[in-house]
Amino acid sequence: MALIDRQSGLFTDHYELTMAQGYYLSGMKDTPARFDYFFRKAPFKGSYVVFAGLQNLMEMLGNFIYDEEACEFLNSRGFNPEFVNFLSRLRFSGDVWSAAEGEIVFPYEPVLSVGGTIIECQLIESMLLNILNFESLIATKASRVKHAAGDKEFIDFGLRRAQGTGAIQASRAAVIGGASGTSNMLAAYQYGLESTGTQAHSWIQSFGSELTAFREFANAFPDRCVLLVDTYNTLGTGVPNAIKVAQEMEERGHRLKGIRLDSGDLAYLSKQARKMLDDAGLEYIRIIASNQLDEYVIRSLKEQDAPIDAFGVGTNLITGRDDAALDGVYKLVFSNGKDRLKISDNIEKMILPGKKRVFRFSDRNGNFYADGVSLNSENELDIICHPFHSEKCSDISNFKREEIVMQVMRKGETLISFKNPYEIAAFAGERIKRLPIEHKRFEFPHIYKVGISRKLIERRDSLIREIRKDM
Amino acid sequence: MALIDRQSGLFTDHYELTMAQGYYLSGMKDTPARFDYFFRKAPFKGSYVVFAGLQNLMEMLGNFIYDEEACEFLNSRGFNPEFVNFLSRLRFSGDVWSAAEGEIVFPYEPVLSVGGTIIECQLIESMLLNILNFESLIATKASRVKHAAGDKEFIDFGLRRAQGTGAIQASRAAVIGGASGTSNMLAAYQYGLESTGTQAHSWIQSFGSELTAFREFANAFPDRCVLLVDTYNTLGTGVPNAIKVAQEMEERGHRLKGIRLDSGDLAYLSKQARKMLDDAGLEYIRIIASNQLDEYVIRSLKEQDAPIDAFGVGTNLITGRDDAALDGVYKLVFSNGKDRLKISDNIEKMILPGKKRVFRFSDRNGNFYADGVSLNSENELDIICHPFHSEKCSDISNFKREEIVMQVMRKGETLISFKNPYEIAAFAGERIKRLPIEHKRFEFPHIYKVGISRKLIERRDSLIREIRKDM
Repeated sequence: MALIDRQSGLFTDHYELTMAQGYYLSGMKDTPARFDYFFRKAPFKGSYVVFAGLQNLMEMLGNFIYDEEACEFLNSRGFNPEFVNFLSRLRFSGDVWSAAEGEIVFPYEPVLSVGGTIIECQLIESMLLNILNFESLIATKASRVKHAAGDKEFIDFGLRRAQGTGAIQASRAAVIGGASGTSNMLAAYQYGLESTGTQAHSWIQSFGSELTAFREFANAFPDRCVLLVDTYNTLGTGVPNAIKVAQEMEERGHRLKGIRLDSGDLAYLSKQARKMLDDAGLEYIRIIASNQLDEYVIRSLKEQDAPIDAFGVGTNLITGRDDAALDGVYKLVFSNGKDRLKISDNIEKMILPGKKRVFRFSDRNGNFYADGVSLNSENELDIICHPFHSEKCSDISNFKREEIVMQVMRKGETLISFKNPYEIAAFAGERIKRLPIEHKRFEFPHIYKVGISRKLIERRDSLIREIRKDM
Repeated sequence: MALIDRQSGLFTDHYELTMAQGYYLSGMKDTPARFDYFFRKAPFKGSYVVFAGLQNLMEMLGNFIYDEEACEFLNSRGFNPEFVNFLSRLRFSGDVWSAAEGEIVFPYEPVLSVGGTIIECQLIESMLLNILNFESLIATKASRVKHAAGDKEFIDFGLRRAQGTGAIQASRAAVIGGASGTSNMLAAYQYGLESTGTQAHSWIQSFGSELTAFREFANAFPDRCVLLVDTYNTLGTGVPNAIKVAQEMEERGHRLKGIRLDSGDLAYLSKQARKMLDDAGLEYIRIIASNQLDEYVIRSLKEQDAPIDAFGVGTNLITGRDDAALDGVYKLVFSNGKDRLKISDNIEKMILPGKKRVFRFSDRNGNFYADGVSLNSENELDIICHPFHSEKCSDISNFKREEIVMQVMRKGETLISFKNPYEIAAFAGERIKRLPIEHKRFEFPHIYKVGISRKLIERRDSLIREIRKDM
């Protein structure tokens, strides 16, 4: 099911429609074009991005329509009736090249490219950016949490603080990045995610006492009972009452699965709770922690040897705090038979013109060493150079190479089969394992090398000269 | 149209369903309960929140169902079949009391309350928090941008960096907070928002030269032409070419509406561009600026007397940067005939028990002075006290009072008529005008007084003693 069932064609910025009408009225409706999606900076002061959103994007492309109501709306907003009539018959029938969903990608490389008529390429821009920027942001955040959590499990608890219905995409992206499941039932339903959840403070409050509340819950869920122990006093009543109920459950042949800590000093409380549980012979009871967690807090808890078995991560995961957005852009690189460039006073805002290929180079141990971007027309790629300091080059002829951006859609037809989020997560996990650790540390990570071919540099420089001459 | 057409009942956390099943199996399915929605901290280091999301919430409550597919899914996830069958017949038939959408609200006051069976109140928690937290966050951010922009217009340009489909709600909330329109066509369609947009760099790039691109656009849109002047060199070619095209348009009896600056130093460039336009006798051409704007940048531009007529605000507005989420919570305050409390080691995390009323007190000039919360059973409210330092009290008997939280839904039936977002924005604007300026400044705003009645303090303290005794 597509993210937006109806009016998908309206999931765009006004200016895309204005430009499309302009192209239509200028007789350019069939002009071929190509756009690249890329980003200039990895979020969270990191070095990499876990690419996500491809499936949702492709399903939206397959469902991209202007139905009668959308057309009426556009007419009412003053769009040209002939153009609106053209839109009513428009379907996305372009080509898409893309990195696999779950791939680890880096600044400045064209992660995804779209080819088609300039009108269809333009109209889908805002939707494409919205989906890829957001889902990649959250998958990347999740992969950082996973890095901190190591062999411990973490679960997305973010629905209540997520940015509206974006929560549904976010929970999927969290799983791609490494969450084992989510609290979000709608995301679980739509994407086949594992879901989990036990009780809130309101459950505890709504009974006469904490002990009664625990007993009632244990009766209702004898085999998957996790008790929230911090409603009144974690160590004073919560853990002792949980131990009492666990012992009663044992007598009935059941086992309490876990306790959850949701406030206070999680390092201190988890150690004390673990000791109390162990002293009562209840070593099997797991400790789950939540409350304002992120990759840094989890790292700190692990450094303190806090005996926490699973983390529930909410707001900071699901909103990608502290980076609310990935800065991905979608730039015209080719139209009407010509490579295109936007030049800028800021050289780092320059783009790579033309149709290109993206390769990854790995060392003999399989570790990722660098990525390289070349022109489609090039046969070999042995030297890659820094995109802005073209005197800095590397010989990568001895490295193993693989092409990481492949065609996934041809004339609107999907060429790949979609994987479920856990399969994508497994792929992302394998890939990230091959990224050397110095690129994954949280503080000042080593920048991963992305180079471009000498031919691409020459192409870019000659286009710059051409444009400057015309100015 | 509701935010989520189908499976709205699944837009919830797993634990809400677990608890609901627990209540069902414990014979508590008809237990009456009441929950309060409130937040503890205003976002953006501010003092207030523009309350938004009520209409979307109420439409979702009206549409809250578990259809056959949802029930099948819940059965497949191990929920009790009898309970799932109960859900298939469940409709939300509770009561809702709420501040008006667009009202200015403050920490610790119950902005919205829900009454009904404990099951229905619990199941809607995650959805309610998701909608109110997010829409209020963005409306609040927009009101700050509006405060900075003053009499200048600003427009939401955020779709491409918004958090997925949450963009649609966010654009509506941005208008409630003060945006004059949006680039987001789907939000414009769904909520009747003004939409606007002209061209991107790709339009300029796709023609042989900037001048040709400008001319083609002016031909296609003679009466609403805004030209993007920074693709190659803003002052060197962009503005001169725009002037040339504006003069050609004048000869044909049209007027260029504006130019847009999207990079570089906006203060410097807008001043230079203004001078160039004025020197050419084109005083009527507006200057629109975009690129990483927020309330602080806009304030700085205005301090520098940058001659900018309208601001396009994107990422920072639509994601609520730097606060990704409002920390609103939904807490049980009454169930089964008893007022309820969650006590905590942290006194500021304590809640206000029972059914309550919320009043606003204004001085003789109509300026908001304080809010007060009392028990439903109280007849008069002349003294309000600090919620955590109950020795600090104020006599508010001489202030004008109004009740700001009113019933909006009875037994599932909506009691109010919905206003369009511009009407809500007008209301929000009037209310925020009555909030003294010291509460609106960006740096260390004065905290707005929210007090509680002495009877409410007594009620809370006696409940604390009761709970402590039972522990």
